[in-house]
Amino acid sequence: MNFKEKIEASTQARNSKIVLALDLPPQKRELLLNKATEILENVEPYVCAVKINRHLVLPLGLFNDLQKIVKRAEDYGLPTIMDCKINDIGATNRVVAQHYFDAGFDAVTANPFVGWEQGLKPVFEAAKKNGKGVILLVYMSHKAAYEGYGQTVKTESGKLVPQYAVFAEKALKWKADGAVVGATYPEKIREIHQMLREEVPIYSPGIGVQGGKIREALNAGARFLIVGRSITLSEEPGENAKKLRDLANQV
Amino acid sequence: MNFKEKIEASTQARNSKIVLALDLPPQKRELLLNKATEILENVEPYVCAVKINRHLVLPLGLFNDLQKIVKRAEDYGLPTIMDCKINDIGATNRVVAQHYFDAGFDAVTANPFVGWEQGLKPVFEAAKKNGKGVILLVYMSHKAAYEGYGQTVKTESGKLVPQYAVFAEKALKWKADGAVVGATYPEKIREIHQMLREEVPIYSPGIGVQGGKIREALNAGARFLIVGRSITLSEEPGENAKKLRDLANQV
Repeated sequence: MNFKEKIEASTQARNSKIVLALDLPPQKRELLLNKATEILENVEPYVCAVKINRHLVLPLGLFNDLQKIVKRAEDYGLPTIMDCKINDIGATNRVVAQHYFDAGFDAVTANPFVGWEQGLKPVFEAAKKNGKGVILLVYMSHKAAYEGYGQTVKTESGKLVPQYAVFAEKALKWKADGAVVGATYPEKIREIHQMLREEVPIYSPGIGVQGGKIREALNAGARFLIVGRSITLSEEPGENAKKLRDLANQV
Repeated sequence: MNFKEKIEASTQARNSKIVLALDLPPQKRELLLNKATEILENVEPYVCAVKINRHLVLPLGLFNDLQKIVKRAEDYGLPTIMDCKINDIGATNRVVAQHYFDAGFDAVTANPFVGWEQGLKPVFEAAKKNGKGVILLVYMSHKAAYEGYGQTVKTESGKLVPQYAVFAEKALKWKADGAVVGATYPEKIREIHQMLREEVPIYSPGIGVQGGKIREALNAGARFLIVGRSITLSEEPGENAKKLRDLANQV
């Protein structure tokens, strides 16, 4: 099973489209591992995958305590995504991706802005070799996304098109396992979904605290909903994850 | 002293324009710390700063063994740059930057493609608050750099300009402490230097293994030369660093 099949199987088996973004605010490092593990334990029945970011990797250390969380997710049968947004030169990207794969992650995120030769090619190669996935950023969820992802660019044939359309093309051409499109921009999800169809599933972050709405994102074509702070900062992470899952399943 | 002044003072005092990129190929984690420390020890008299990347951060752990290397560089009086190429949403970027600053780094690199609001604004704010620096990617050193950094984009006023010109404008507007432009593209260094003048110094990676030439990069306007594998993979890192420093000083 490749990553696309793996997370699809997980979303079916668990009847959930929610990907937990296990992001916690900076705090004492001794508390961080316990807190993250506790949230994961409470939330795991209601999500289909776990996404981890530098909020945990940097304070815990990848091959130190962070790996314990990856292992725990694996024990629950949850696929894990490292949201490292790879955007360096190829030789470095290869090393970065390989470290995350070695630590047990099933997929990494990467920025198509880097391009292919000596850029993301080594990442896709490493993923293929290790049976892992690559998810590309196509339109991010923050306010200034228009500056980069939304800018108008000239294609080789001289046509003026939005940057995200170029990135969606790359996602298809490079056979990415997923595309990130912010839930805060449902009209972009719709437009990008029309390009990607069912070939490249859309992962939509920005639900809740950032203002994105589950119904709008799903109706526009998102396949997975990435939820972080609405779950991790709530008093009852498990209960909230369950509510969001149920809400998504009603759409 | 802000970061721009700090590294300028270092380059004057040490009579070197070379920034050591302390990147090592993946190897046993126990060996990595020793090897990196040994190279730093041999090379430190001939460089003006140290740049660290995920080659060391991920296997060693930021607050585990990696911090020992940052501390060692600090003991030598060398400014340290974390080449994390920040490109996430603002809330995450702020956490990432703060962790690296807390670990002792004097500056971080970031990708202006993210934009300002909820993008790099929190990074510049965190840097200012902590007395640290931000260096922006303007044109990278790899083959596919043309796909992103070299593409033609439409400005708000409807003009068609190269992406790197937009990024150079942002470097000036956001008061970046430096701009990265690959030594593999000396004509881009020249063009970008004409925009940035002495306001934002150019850091040029890609010297040596990647094909960039010291003389060409400096003549085109680079202020600092980032050198990694030509030093770290050589039999005599200290000797090679000295040679490269002297070569640069002859230009």
